[in-house]
This record gives sequence, C-alpha cells and structure tokens, in this order.
Amino acid sequence: MRAAILSIGTELTRGELVNSNATWLSERLTALGFEVVEHAVVPDDSERIGATVSRFGREVKLVLGTGGLGPTSDDLTADAVAAMLGVSVVRHEPSLERIRARYRRIGREMPAPNVKQADLPAGADVLDNDVGTAPGFAVQVGEARCFFLPGVPREMRHLFEAHVVPEMAPQVPRTSHQVHIRSYGLRESEVAERLGDIDEGGTLARPGVTLGYRAHFPEIEVKVLARAVDEAAATALADEVAAQVRERLGDHAYGGRGDSYAAWVGERLRARDWKLAVAESCTGGLIGKLLTDPAGSSDYLVLDAVTYANEAKQAVLGVDPEVLVEHGAVSAPVAQAMAEGALERAHADVAVATTGIAGPGGGSDHKPVGTVWFGLARRGAETLTECRQFSGDRERVRTAAAWNALRLVARAAASSLDALSGGALDDDKDRAK
Amino acid sequence: MRAAILSIGTELTRGELVNSNATWLSERLTALGFEVVEHAVVPDDSERIGATVSRFGREVKLVLGTGGLGPTSDDLTADAVAAMLGVSVVRHEPSLERIRARYRRIGREMPAPNVKQADLPAGADVLDNDVGTAPGFAVQVGEARCFFLPGVPREMRHLFEAHVVPEMAPQVPRTSHQVHIRSYGLRESEVAERLGDIDEGGTLARPGVTLGYRAHFPEIEVKVLARAVDEAAATALADEVAAQVRERLGDHAYGGRGDSYAAWVGERLRARDWKLAVAESCTGGLIGKLLTDPAGSSDYLVLDAVTYANEAKQAVLGVDPEVLVEHGAVSAPVAQAMAEGALERAHADVAVATTGIAGPGGGSDHKPVGTVWFGLARRGAETLTECRQFSGDRERVRTAAAWNALRLVARAAASSLDALSGGALDDDKDRAK
Repeated sequence: MRAAILSIGTELTRGELVNSNATWLSERLTALGFEVVEHAVVPDDSERIGATVSRFGREVKLVLGTGGLGPTSDDLTADAVAAMLGVSVVRHEPSLERIRARYRRIGREMPAPNVKQADLPAGADVLDNDVGTAPGFAVQVGEARCFFLPGVPREMRHLFEAHVVPEMAPQVPRTSHQVHIRSYGLRESEVAERLGDIDEGGTLARPGVTLGYRAHFPEIEVKVLARAVDEAAATALADEVAAQVRERLGDHAYGGRGDSYAAWVGERLRARDWKLAVAESCTGGLIGKLLTDPAGSSDYLVLDAVTYANEAKQAVLGVDPEVLVEHGAVSAPVAQAMAEGALERAHADVAVATTGIAGPGGGSDHKPVGTVWFGLARRGAETLTECRQFSGDRERVRTAAAWNALRLVARAAASSLDALSGGALDDDKDRAK
Repeated sequence: MRAAILSIGTELTRGELVNSNATWLSERLTALGFEVVEHAVVPDDSERIGATVSRFGREVKLVLGTGGLGPTSDDLTADAVAAMLGVSVVRHEPSLERIRARYRRIGREMPAPNVKQADLPAGADVLDNDVGTAPGFAVQVGEARCFFLPGVPREMRHLFEAHVVPEMAPQVPRTSHQVHIRSYGLRESEVAERLGDIDEGGTLARPGVTLGYRAHFPEIEVKVLARAVDEAAATALADEVAAQVRERLGDHAYGGRGDSYAAWVGERLRARDWKLAVAESCTGGLIGKLLTDPAGSSDYLVLDAVTYANEAKQAVLGVDPEVLVEHGAVSAPVAQAMAEGALERAHADVAVATTGIAGPGGGSDHKPVGTVWFGLARRGAETLTECRQFSGDRERVRTAAAWNALRLVARAAASSLDALSGGALDDDKDRAK
C-alpha cells in the first residue's frame, strides 16, 4: 500500500528545523509494510497544503500530514483541508472540553487562542490527543485516508501509534520483518567490512535480506530487513541473520531498537550488584545525564561529582593540590585521583573519571583540544588510566568522552579482576572520526 | 524568486536517513532571499523524479535536486531528467577525464562503474566537482533553472556555493530580514496572546511583518520576518517589531538565534562575578550538562554534585541523615540542605538544588511523579525553596526541572538581595505542558 507524508510549516521550508518527523514516520511506515513514495514539505500556505493533499489523494492510499494544528495564526491545516474539501470548519465541542480540562488539571484557565485547536473540518474523524492540546483529525481525499497530526514530535508519535496504526496496519499484508542492532566502538566502514560477506552480493548473503546502516554518532545501527512469504518466515529469517550480525560485531553490539548504551551498561552493574561513582570534569555532567536518562538508574548510580573547578576537585574528591599544580588538571595522576576520590567518597564498587579539553579553547601543542584522560578505580584493584585524543567540535569531544567512560565501566563489570588488571584496555584505539 | 528542493533517494523515503541536505539548502536559499515553496523527497524512481521536476518547472524559477548521481544501479537522476526532457544521455569526456585523474592522484585506477557518473543529459551545463567524483549538471525545465547536485553533504554544499550561488544570487533582490527571539517560561498560546495585537490582523500590526512561532520544549522561539523595499528598510522594520516583541515577553525573552538559555544564565553569573554550585538528584547531571555545553562555563561553574543516592547526599553535601529519614529525599528541607551543602562545599556565591521524582516509577499520592523540590542558597541570604509539579514523561520532567533550576539562578543573579528574599518567585506557576 502506497503512502505519502506531508510536513507543514514555514520553519521547515526556511530550513530552521530538520524534518525529523518525516524520517520517523517513514521508518515506522516502512516497518509496517507500507511503501512511502513521497515526502512533501510545504510552508504555512493554505493553497499549497490543499493542492498537495489533493494530489496525494490521486496517488496513494494513505497520507500522513503533520504540523499546523497549533493555536497561532500561522496554523492553517484544518482551514486548508476544509477549503480543499469544500466544507466548513466547525467547532468540535468535546475537543474544546478536553483542552479546557487539560488546563484545569494544572490549575489554569485555557488561553483564548487555544479555542482554535477545536475547530476542525466538518465531517472529519477526530483523533483524541492524550499528551497535548491539539487533537488530530482524519478525512478521506480521493483514494487516500488522510491523517493530520500535530507537529510536536511527542504528540505526533503518540497519535500515530494510538490512531493510525490500529486503523491502517491491518490493511497491509505483513511479509517483512526488520531487526535493529546497535553498536558502539566501530566506524561505519569497519562495520560494513565485518558484515561484507553476509550483506547483499556477499558470499553468504541470504535472498530477501537487506542490511542497512545508520550512523548516529557515536553509534552505528545495523538494520536487517527480511522479506519472505509471510511475517513468521520473515521474522525467522531476520532473526537468523541478526544473530550472524551480532556475532561479527562481538561486544561492540549492545542492543536493539530503543535501547540505550547507558542502560545496557547499567544492566552490567546491576547484574554484579555494583554501585558506581562518577567524577567528571570536561564532560560536565553528560555521563550522569546519560546514566540517569533510563529509569531505575538509582539502583547502581550513587554519585556523579562534576568537579569543573580545581578547587572542587580538591574539596569534593580530595585531589592533592600539589598533583594538580605539578601535572595539570588534564593528566593521568589527576584522572586517577578523581576516580579514587569518587570511589572512596561514595563507598562505591567502581568509579570512572574524566578530565580533558573539550574546546574550542584551552588546547596547547602538548595537550591539544580533544585530549581526555580517563581513570577507572575499583575496590581491591589497581586504578587504570588511559588517554584518548578525540576530534571534532566541543559537543563531539564531550559525547565521545562520555561514551568511552561508560565503555570502561562496562568492561570493568564484564571482566574478572585479572583480565582487567592485565590490560584489557590496550587493544583500544581512538575510534572517534 | 520562488525555489523548490527535490531530494532523491530511497534511503530518505524509507526513513533511514534524516534529510539534512534540504534543511541546509533551505536555510541558505532563504538567507539569499529566495522563497522556498516546497521540498519533495522521492525514491530512486525515474518516473517520480521526472514528474516532480516537470511539476516544479511550472511552479518555480529555481529547482535544486540532490542525490542519485553515484556510480550504482540505483542512481537514476541523469537518466530520469534526460527522459523527462526527451533528450538522450551522452558521455561527457572532460568529466570522465576528471574522474580518472581523481583516482590517479590517490594511486588507483578508476573502478568501471564510475564511468556512469560522466553520462549526463545532452545539452546540460556541467558543474565541475572539486571535492568528489560526481559532477553536477544544470538544465532549463519550463520556467525553472534546475541544478542537480550530489547527495553527499560536503559535495552538495561545495557545488551549491561554487555554481548555484554565483549564477542565481544576483537575480534576487534582497528585500527581507528576519530576527529570532527565544523565550522560556511561557506556553506558545501565552506568547501568542501577549503578541496578539502586533501579529498579523492585530490593531498594531505593521504591513510587511509576519510573526512565526516555534515550540521546542521548553522554549518558544518567535520569528519576526519583515519585507520592505530594500534590505536596509526590512532590517529596520524587523528590528523595530522585534523590540516590541521583547518588551511584551519581558524577562521571558532571553536571546536570539543560536543562543542557549544556559549560556545566557552563565552571562548573568559572569556579570556579577559569581561562582555557581549545583546539587542534582532527579535531574541526574542534566543541569551540569546544559551549563557546560557552551565553552567558557568554567568561569562560573565550580561544582555539580549529582547525589543520586541518599548516602551521597550525606557524604558529599552533608545532608543530615535524620532530615532524610524524617522528610524523605523529595522535600523542602532536603532541597535546602543540598543547596546549602553545595554552596559551602564549593565556596560558591550561589547554589541551586533539585530533588524530585522523574518517574515513571517512584510516585505516590502524596508525591506524584513530576514533583520536584528546588533549593536556592545564597551567601548572606535565606535559602529559598519551591515545589513544582511537572507533567509528561521522564525526559520531559527532567528537562523542565533543569530549566527551572537555571531560571532560579538567573533570577537570583538579576535580583537585589531584598527583591529575592521578598518572594520574587511567588508569581511562578507550573508552566510545563
């Protein structure tokens, strides 16, 4: 079944916002078995909105429109669709009451402009919105069932899953299945090389299976898409090839779609009943942020001391001021002292520390921007340190450093004491691009 | 002058790749004075490519196509455009020689499939590519000058600047100017309400001026676009209305395009030469991460103690264990003790603390998910606490809480001691959606 996506908003055609909604919808629709034949992006312009919906109504069976359902004067979707259909816009009282109730729940009165969000094309099916004020709506245009969803990604996703999937997915025969494998620590070309013989054209390639790669720094996601006579056969085929992919990627493969590396590292800690302490300098709280994004992280994370200033490194982590003066804050002895200080202070089982130069300023010939020292302290083991040189801008250096710190923790939790002390980290090179 | 963008590639319509090329081109074209009226994204499908170019040829004066110029069998752009124009594809020998020379320079022979990259529609103007193998080309279709560029972002940008800008930019009179104003602390509808009379249709609206709104939680960005007889007049008009917008938004308006709230808060601290300490629980490092995203934050941020466990609150911040037992970690006394502990420990001038329930678990009737207590400690002033109830998922609660903590710091830095002690925070309500 052919589908098309219409993204509405001048912020998109003016390049002020990346169209991540269309990408998300395309991926979901493809996974559900639809063939997406076009995305169109148009400004807040009634005529263009109407003309595009009308054109899609002649070309596809499913249209997904997003955006233009807000309370402001440039939100025109309902008006444009109504005009194109030759119907009027009518106030949908139940939706208005839902919007009012939403405000009441937080002890406020609905602002006057929000009334507009309950004005929908006459005859449209209303799509209740449980996570925001704007309801969506659905209409028939030519051959196409057309759904109009809010542009706010969270609301758009919610309405898609709550209204579009239950109605439309059963109409598509499912003959494909896709498995996602997330990996960290290899470049895209290295991943492609390891998977060369099982990818299309390779000696072990399986008919009906396509591998896709998506780089989302610092991760590479591998997608295994299998097509077969029915969904069960496709699932079996995809699972089989996915197992091969995981084997080739070794411990660089860490999870599937929607998994997070920090949560995966947390599971390693939970499995050993270890408590973690973190001491951050250049990463500035990012490691803590990543670790606490998933719920339940309080089971293993005890403390993250972001000691941005040298005085804080002394006062909170007990780093010796003389060591700071002699070696500088970005050094192995300071990384070691930070990790050991965090371990002691938090009575933790393992502690990781970062101290480096995220840039753009602060670099030198001796310690260029991107230099980061890591310390890894464990109860009853020698503290390890390593230096990495990351490239890219401030954000990239900080992200690469935070992930590497997590990786050190994961390795510590996965290793026996001997393997770790024996230099299990030596094989590691700077893999940041 | 109206322009349209055509992005070609099944990886886009399948949602495997975000269409950042279209965003980049839109932003550049808008800045150059073009009006981008549509992006279309189509798969590697000759008919769709041809039909879309043909349609754009009737609607706009400039078309920018990207992608489908590679050496593989699914790269169809040249064939599709030639077929649509009714001309043949011919081998462009100078381009073939450039491709060969490019491989020679790296000591390799040109792989056979690359020959295809020199096959272009007869009569097309060839756009030399100095940074990759695929040349671009330009043709006339109806009213439109159509440029086809490679999909690799670096090559696309290079060819755009080297070929499109010199030919097309002089044809556009620059008669518009846009100003961006970022705001935090008001909902989109509240922003719209405050700006109602200066927005289109309002009693004070100015001809030629359009206001646009963009919600990016928890911020609302207001864009003032002015069109006038020339660029100078448009700039003056936009600046004038932008000043009105800032006045209406009061201290909710904090910066312009590309500014960050955390950096703006940091500037307030820098202006007073204040050092900041942070104590986080439920926000888990996010406040530190936001504060240290901008470079130079070490001028004011001394310490961020992410004390996720109660033992860490005691050990690092000196929170009294009895207070933790009596009131629970999510309470005013603990928020106060955390802020005061961070202030003392870091010898800071101001300290902010968060302790709350980010969810999804951990809530109760008495303290539901989304409950966050804040503490704000200052040298020589009474410590303030406030409780907020945020709604939404874990990520949203954490984001809302982190921004609110920054806001408390900004207010403290902006206030005289008396104003702050006098309860300047009382007017604040939960503004999270």
